[in-house]
Amino acid sequence: MTLRLAKPFTITATAIALCLGGAASAQDMSDYTVMFEALPAMPPIPSGTTMSTERIDLGRMLFFEPRISASGVISCATCHNPALGWTDRIPRATGHDGQVGDRNTPTVLNSGFLGAQFWDGREPDLEGQALGPIQAEIEMNMTLVEAIDRLNEFEVYRDAFSAAFPGDPDPVNPPNVALAIAAFERTLNTPNSPFDRFLMGDEMAMTEQQQNGMRLFVDNGCVACHNGPILSDSNFHRFELPGSTDEGRFLVTGDEHDRFAFRTPTLRNVAVTYPYFNNGSVADLRDAVNLMGQQMLGHDFEENELDDLVAFLDTLTGEMPHIEVPALP
Amino acid sequence: MTLRLAKPFTITATAIALCLGGAASAQDMSDYTVMFEALPAMPPIPSGTTMSTERIDLGRMLFFEPRISASGVISCATCHNPALGWTDRIPRATGHDGQVGDRNTPTVLNSGFLGAQFWDGREPDLEGQALGPIQAEIEMNMTLVEAIDRLNEFEVYRDAFSAAFPGDPDPVNPPNVALAIAAFERTLNTPNSPFDRFLMGDEMAMTEQQQNGMRLFVDNGCVACHNGPILSDSNFHRFELPGSTDEGRFLVTGDEHDRFAFRTPTLRNVAVTYPYFNNGSVADLRDAVNLMGQQMLGHDFEENELDDLVAFLDTLTGEMPHIEVPALP
Repeated sequence: MTLRLAKPFTITATAIALCLGGAASAQDMSDYTVMFEALPAMPPIPSGTTMSTERIDLGRMLFFEPRISASGVISCATCHNPALGWTDRIPRATGHDGQVGDRNTPTVLNSGFLGAQFWDGREPDLEGQALGPIQAEIEMNMTLVEAIDRLNEFEVYRDAFSAAFPGDPDPVNPPNVALAIAAFERTLNTPNSPFDRFLMGDEMAMTEQQQNGMRLFVDNGCVACHNGPILSDSNFHRFELPGSTDEGRFLVTGDEHDRFAFRTPTLRNVAVTYPYFNNGSVADLRDAVNLMGQQMLGHDFEENELDDLVAFLDTLTGEMPHIEVPALP
Repeated sequence: MTLRLAKPFTITATAIALCLGGAASAQDMSDYTVMFEALPAMPPIPSGTTMSTERIDLGRMLFFEPRISASGVISCATCHNPALGWTDRIPRATGHDGQVGDRNTPTVLNSGFLGAQFWDGREPDLEGQALGPIQAEIEMNMTLVEAIDRLNEFEVYRDAFSAAFPGDPDPVNPPNVALAIAAFERTLNTPNSPFDRFLMGDEMAMTEQQQNGMRLFVDNGCVACHNGPILSDSNFHRFELPGSTDEGRFLVTGDEHDRFAFRTPTLRNVAVTYPYFNNGSVADLRDAVNLMGQQMLGHDFEENELDDLVAFLDTLTGEMPHIEVPALP
């Protein structure tokens, strides 16, 4: 295509894009973009649950509620910190009395798209996940009976549960806590990343280097596991992480095939959800990509390939949810 | 004043207010309202400081920044939790490794109006206060050298400090951390309470019972210490709190007169900043008012007086700041 300078007003949008951005044409990249999916506005909503406003509002309150922890100061938002990509950006989760767990805190962002929760996939959905950290002795360290008793002390909570679960005669109960938190979490998605805009046709949303990183990501097979709307197959893969003795999925299934296997993490917002891997031992994204190449692909990336892959991964950072901290009773 | 029903369109606003609200006329309450001050939009700004947008934005980041704590999970917002009236609603502050301090966490709300910071007034202003909890071993447990080193790792912080302190060749330093946090905190005010609206002339903003509570508050002398825009004289008063051995201001001055003396806390938002007193041992506002009557006024309030005083104190809850948690680097 050439610019027809004699008739400047007929210059097409594509031509202008070529002039301004220097980006490759959509045609060049179509073999690659077809391998990905833009983020839907909302994750799948499990049968029997609802994303009603009342339930989301209650879930937000519960997410920020530290009084369902034994210390009274730890809430979901402590480790899934909105200021830190809805994770904690430390290697391993730190909870009750400063105890440090075995694994890195996964981000809540876009977690409704995952087909398995926790690093070992021991729960299938967010409802199953939500009550775990409340009860874990090294996290919030509170029994569900105590948690429900505390919530029941507040008229505001009794009313909010009634509104979120109309018709339930005794709505302040653990399953409803899980349903409300999960409904809120399904709103914590990160649309409008450069990657999504590129997939939707905005050729200027990704630089040449980032597009090259996308090609490398596909051509080298990263996309085999990191696929779908959040670049995770929600499946389990064995991985030898230097220094880690965590047996991963094996602890759930007892299946030898699952020893050292972990669920593929989402790559959405990967640039702002460091450090990486099940024990958070790798702080730098470039190092993480390098290790993945060696471990999963049996391949040492060139320096410039690592640069391009990291540049591509940077495009996966989307718009953070605009959440105002609720005023609790 | 009588309603001139023959000419309904000449009924005055005052007459309508009397009909609708049943509130006493402004004239009745003027002897009382003159004893109080509505909340100014902004607290005094100390000489040599500025409330620039850049400085406030940086202060907000630092306020929510847990990586200036040894554990990496405790920030100013942990104990001064926006979800909980910018305090923690537990008796005594819980910090590093779950250690529990000796005193109740004061709210940050409207704290720029206080003439002395901490329960014992050991710092005169928010700048003096800000660096204390970072270094306290039982709170965030980090040296200022380490804190500055951590912040310096992030280009975003280096840029934010440069923008907030233009002309400073080495702006990432402890005094600037304090200046930025204090600038942010001076924005955390709670206007538009029923009390403020009443003082500004809205006769329907407070019920008869609340107005009666205001009269009792003045007539019984509570206003002697709880005065000024945030109902605190920022001065120190001796007080025997059952079960407390905390010597208060004496620990700062060594002056016998200051033994067991504490700075008068603000009463703004008192209904949502429970529990009360220096060790947080009183959970209920009515009990707190009762104890104050006995200790400071040598007077047992009647049951209905306690009801009215609590109803008045409820009018001091203002509009919470609308703060979005910042996305940190």
